[in-house]
Amino acid sequence: MTGGGEQAGVSPAGPTLVLSPQARLAVEARLRADRRAVEDGLDRLLGANGVPPTLHEAMRYSVFAGGKRLRPLLVIAAAEVGGTAADAVLPAACAVELVHTYSLVHDDLPAMDDSPTRRGRPTCHVVYGDALAVLAGDGLQALGFDLLARNAGVPGIAPDRVVRAIAALATGIGARGMVGGQTLDLLAARDRSRDVREIHRLKTGALIEACLRIGGLLGGASDAALDALARYGAHVGLAFQIVDDLLDVLGDETALGKHTGSDAAQAKLTFPGVFGVTAARELAQEATAQAVLALEPLGARGRWLHDLAIYLLTRDR
Amino acid sequence: MTGGGEQAGVSPAGPTLVLSPQARLAVEARLRADRRAVEDGLDRLLGANGVPPTLHEAMRYSVFAGGKRLRPLLVIAAAEVGGTAADAVLPAACAVELVHTYSLVHDDLPAMDDSPTRRGRPTCHVVYGDALAVLAGDGLQALGFDLLARNAGVPGIAPDRVVRAIAALATGIGARGMVGGQTLDLLAARDRSRDVREIHRLKTGALIEACLRIGGLLGGASDAALDALARYGAHVGLAFQIVDDLLDVLGDETALGKHTGSDAAQAKLTFPGVFGVTAARELAQEATAQAVLALEPLGARGRWLHDLAIYLLTRDR
Repeated sequence: MTGGGEQAGVSPAGPTLVLSPQARLAVEARLRADRRAVEDGLDRLLGANGVPPTLHEAMRYSVFAGGKRLRPLLVIAAAEVGGTAADAVLPAACAVELVHTYSLVHDDLPAMDDSPTRRGRPTCHVVYGDALAVLAGDGLQALGFDLLARNAGVPGIAPDRVVRAIAALATGIGARGMVGGQTLDLLAARDRSRDVREIHRLKTGALIEACLRIGGLLGGASDAALDALARYGAHVGLAFQIVDDLLDVLGDETALGKHTGSDAAQAKLTFPGVFGVTAARELAQEATAQAVLALEPLGARGRWLHDLAIYLLTRDR
Repeated sequence: MTGGGEQAGVSPAGPTLVLSPQARLAVEARLRADRRAVEDGLDRLLGANGVPPTLHEAMRYSVFAGGKRLRPLLVIAAAEVGGTAADAVLPAACAVELVHTYSLVHDDLPAMDDSPTRRGRPTCHVVYGDALAVLAGDGLQALGFDLLARNAGVPGIAPDRVVRAIAALATGIGARGMVGGQTLDLLAARDRSRDVREIHRLKTGALIEACLRIGGLLGGASDAALDALARYGAHVGLAFQIVDDLLDVLGDETALGKHTGSDAAQAKLTFPGVFGVTAARELAQEATAQAVLALEPLGARGRWLHDLAIYLLTRDR
């Protein structure tokens, strides 16, 4: 996927999955600006007040570990579709990142994937011990819901939309979503017949789809736009996971900040592992094409999400 | 506390903390009826649909382990203060029980308290393994928020009250509440100078106080009534924890379904351990008296909460 990924990303009948060099620079500039806003928001919202210092430290250690902040970016992008600026949904954007972080902290535990490092740093439990890692994850999940609920105070956001956004998050990350996917992933290490698509639809896709719904709901999107956003989210989530798997096989260790080949070492069920690299790459392109098509009802308001989907397909880290 | 607990529960200047035999029977009948409604609600709301079977089993195993269902009973009792019937807040009542169960499942993990049994049965991780226990806990937390958010559909409950109830739960169980208390409790095993009151105010009290707020908010209580309910919750939560500690030292193993003396064996910081049995018992009476006094603004609408507080003080299990 490194290097000429853009050129490879054209499927004959579907949309053109190429960004011009200028468009690519514009995406990168926008990503930098949004990420800065999210980092600032997380820093403000993860206050020490009333939190036992060791717990607070463990939570911050995990949150500020250099993630891509994809999920908050998607919340902000979806809110824009309804004409709402990033500021208004920043607590919600931070909320989904906290929830994502909690899932990584728990996934890395010795009882789960037993990962000593993530993004080139020792994982939370290695630094703070298993008990604190369990508690930091638990606290991050609760704080995610807390931020979403307190987002209700943002002018122009109706409380019933906040409630629907909370329900979308809770369902997306629960036993029918992310936690269910993580369970299937764990069991898959023993039973190779499990469907890799189903696992990742739940494990990664459900939260990403929820991010689009949350942004749409809080941003004031119409029901039709919400449907389009959710469909986009499902396809982009799938594409994102496949590209992640491909980068694990093919990527540059320095760019990724983790050991490539780590999925294979853990006997994880991956897209290239099941379908081969070529077919997995085609699947990622197909899912991105579907994501782009899902944006059609949004017209020009879907432009940023369009460019973002193609950028994510052709990323090298 | 077994036997003549009622007679001991009178403090000279405060309210009389005694239930007549008839009142005690009435409390027990009401508790049985409410518990049955909660058990039925939990059974309905913990559906298998879309949840990986092993995960579903682990969640249900933990939820149906014979708990007292105190927290749902408090949600229902608080909703009644605003004139709302149990049915309307049953999803919220079940939500707090799921969240309480998640905290027990994680607390019992080898990395935490390492408890092989609870209520006379093997704990979740003993039966399903540590990974499933982490995931079952995570899924139960998310499902708690899911149920609360979907409670918004109950007629007569305004969405902004649902949002405030969710915020109350999230704060009560987060790093500034329950998870913070559990952290302090873990650290206390190494540092005996930690304040046992502060630990239990967070670890047990914060969720119990949230239950009163949630019931009050969803039940339509006035702001003044909400304040009274929250104060009652803080005091009842403290009394409940002290009585729990006393029962661990003095209680009948058969009635409790767990080994008494287990707190001492784990070097846990307890009220009788820090203050002695007599002073701890006085503290529980004082906290119950404060809870009863907090109900004064509610007049006759506080009757059930009044009797319940005294019943909880004089329970033998």
